[in-house]
Amino acid sequence: MATAAETAAMREAIALAARGLGRTRPNPVVGCVVLDASGEVAGSGWHQRAGGPHAEIHALRAAGERARGGTALVTLEPCDHTGRTGPCSRALIEAGVRRVVHAVADPTDQATGGADTLRAAGVDVEHGLLEREAADVNAAWLTAARLGRPHVTWKYAASLDGRTAAADGTSRWITSPEARADVHRLRATCDAVLVGSGTARTDDPHLAVRGIPGAPQPLRVVLDTEGTAVRGGARVLDDAAPTLVALADDAPAPAHGAELLRLPRAAHGGLDLTALLAALYARDVRGILLEGGARLAGAFVAAGYTDRVVGYLAPVLLGAGPAALTDAGIPTLTAALRLDVRDSTRLGPDLRITAVPTTAPKER
Amino acid sequence: MATAAETAAMREAIALAARGLGRTRPNPVVGCVVLDASGEVAGSGWHQRAGGPHAEIHALRAAGERARGGTALVTLEPCDHTGRTGPCSRALIEAGVRRVVHAVADPTDQATGGADTLRAAGVDVEHGLLEREAADVNAAWLTAARLGRPHVTWKYAASLDGRTAAADGTSRWITSPEARADVHRLRATCDAVLVGSGTARTDDPHLAVRGIPGAPQPLRVVLDTEGTAVRGGARVLDDAAPTLVALADDAPAPAHGAELLRLPRAAHGGLDLTALLAALYARDVRGILLEGGARLAGAFVAAGYTDRVVGYLAPVLLGAGPAALTDAGIPTLTAALRLDVRDSTRLGPDLRITAVPTTAPKER
Ligand SMILES: NC(=O)c1ccc[n+]([C@@H]2O[C@H](COP(=O)([O-])OP(=O)(O)OC[C@H]3O[C@@H](n4cnc5c(N)ncnc54)[C@H](OP(=O)(O)O)[C@@H]3O)[C@@H](O)[C@H]2O)c1
Ligand SMILES: NC(=O)c1ccc[n+]([C@@H]2O[C@H](COP(=O)([O-])OP(=O)(O)OC[C@H]3O[C@@H](n4cnc5c(N)ncnc54)[C@H](OP(=O)(O)O)[C@@H]3O)[C@@H](O)[C@H]2O)c1
Repeated sequence: MATAAETAAMREAIALAARGLGRTRPNPVVGCVVLDASGEVAGSGWHQRAGGPHAEIHALRAAGERARGGTALVTLEPCDHTGRTGPCSRALIEAGVRRVVHAVADPTDQATGGADTLRAAGVDVEHGLLEREAADVNAAWLTAARLGRPHVTWKYAASLDGRTAAADGTSRWITSPEARADVHRLRATCDAVLVGSGTARTDDPHLAVRGIPGAPQPLRVVLDTEGTAVRGGARVLDDAAPTLVALADDAPAPAHGAELLRLPRAAHGGLDLTALLAALYARDVRGILLEGGARLAGAFVAAGYTDRVVGYLAPVLLGAGPAALTDAGIPTLTAALRLDVRDSTRLGPDLRITAVPTTAPKER
Repeated sequence: MATAAETAAMREAIALAARGLGRTRPNPVVGCVVLDASGEVAGSGWHQRAGGPHAEIHALRAAGERARGGTALVTLEPCDHTGRTGPCSRALIEAGVRRVVHAVADPTDQATGGADTLRAAGVDVEHGLLEREAADVNAAWLTAARLGRPHVTWKYAASLDGRTAAADGTSRWITSPEARADVHRLRATCDAVLVGSGTARTDDPHLAVRGIPGAPQPLRVVLDTEGTAVRGGARVLDDAAPTLVALADDAPAPAHGAELLRLPRAAHGGLDLTALLAALYARDVRGILLEGGARLAGAFVAAGYTDRVVGYLAPVLLGAGPAALTDAGIPTLTAALRLDVRDSTRLGPDLRITAVPTTAPKER
């Protein structure tokens, strides 16, 4: 059983882990707090970037000698393998830590075993403290580890009656500055941001993170089957963030000079989403933010590639205009994508609703 | 300044007032708590039905001699006129109440003056305690008193992407049993429930309150311009609640035998909503629940007759199917109906969002 001090320390470790979001791919985000033998916080840290020290190493360095006889709270089971850094299980044993509490077990093959190694060295190991919260912060990496494809968050902004624009196409701004600032925070937690050619054509979106000093920039990806929607001078082609234009194997090369990702065509038009996800996974992308539009989102829903939905609902009624989601391949109510609302938060006048499918996600 | 005991008593008075919803038309709902000279609750009551005693009379009777030197907390300014019951201002003075705190001033001509009469008799009068909460519970009556037309609440149930049914028309059930039970509670607080002929044709709705023992039944109203949508045997024609079929002046009389309300046709099709609201007002209806469908709701929005919106949002994605609101006469974003979210509540898996327009409502 964990003590109150340990629970508080794990909560802090989860908050620290979240600081790594958008920066650690292809690694998980991990936070660690080390308590000394008397239960006081001796040191803490988080995994800041792939190739850098793991969270445990940061925390042990900060704790120094006070780690001896103490307890380490880690959001993910400590690794046991000698990768770019040494195994954390060893480091914890050598620092003389008496007890290790981790929230989530490591589901990957190479890393598993940290808990066993610790136990074999006489360390008291406990698992499952604040497991759900810790799994939530690591949802992208855990999904990717389990399913072999990136985790997909579909984000949309709509009126209360589900429209993304008015009858004449005007959509700036349905949602408030507070909601729009939140979208930038969300982008900064993902490895890649995706839009379809329809959105590229209509909105010429920028898709980089703005207004958050020092924030990591996601990879910007446009699905442009024929290579005709992104043109020279498009905002997505500036140097604020890297950009990838996905297009069909047989499409003529566009003149804009952006990096290209060649993909097979899907049977029913557009690009093959399974191939897209595999290609992004191969580029270390673990968390994707799908920013629309309605047709591309529909294709992701139809393919079963929707792991989280974040809806920004503005208290506005329109009664006409494009819908937030189309062509999702749902003919009847029993085939609907049912979600479980995880959170609903006021952002200025708007509501942000976060939900996850009630059914198991599709592997790649 | 009100004491903590007075604030608590006013909160109780507001809760008591709410018990009258759906039962008092054309009167307001009113609650009253009387504290004795030492600040203890001596009696309480609410206005239970038009023609019955006012809230103050119930509370004074319950308090008896303990009202002397005490304080009355009333959700609405006490009346000063001799209507079907004597003036409450008099009754409070005769009971020896030393102080009267009312939340909301009476906006009507005949009743105003209760506060002045009390003051003239040496009673200490205060106004405005929990004014907003008290005004909310009386929104229908206050709107009707101010604008000369009934207050309209538009209620809808939709998926997160704003659809009221799937592509094949299936819609049972998008929302949960908890949300549907809440709709019956909402119905019971209104004087009339309205639907258009489209809904009558497609759904054959019942529209009465079910599952709440002893609940008041609203007047069921179907807008059936040609008198062809409601047929003999329609569920709305049973004896669970009174029913009114509104139809055009020149439409042939239907055979079903339900009570008819003849109305002029509107310029752009359907029935004249201003005439409808005037006719319902004349029948003492103060609070209307507009239950759809999308076109009728659009006509109410276009006419400026939407005072409150209650949306039941199911965490479901459909990507196809009818929209919750259509033909609202909004061509561009700046013409959207902007709302202010007053409440968002979980009902089982669903969200109920209550919002009111940010702009001033339209008079009749
Ligand atoms: N409110 C919001 O949250 C929000 C967000 C984004 C966009 N929007 C709005 O949405 C509108 C654009 O939406 P849209 O539905 O027209 O376009 P879209 O979803 O942005 O793009 C759809 C296009 O992407 C291409 N595509 C490539 N592979 C695909 C696949 N596997 N499945 C589906 N599409 C694929 C297809 O065109 P090709 O095959 O020809 O390339 C397809 O027509 C814009 O008006 C924009 O303002 C709103
Ligand atoms: N999810 C929900 O909350 C909900 C609630 C209710 C209904 N629904 C669904 O909505 C669908 C029906 O919606 P709908 O839009 O087709 O029909 P509707 O809004 O129920 O009825 C519209 C009809 O009402 C009549 N009407 C009379 N006066 C009118 C006026 N001033 N303005 C507009 N209409 C007036 C018109 O027909 P006439 O002039 O010919 O009489 C008009 O076509 C059904 O499928 C039902 O299941 C969903």
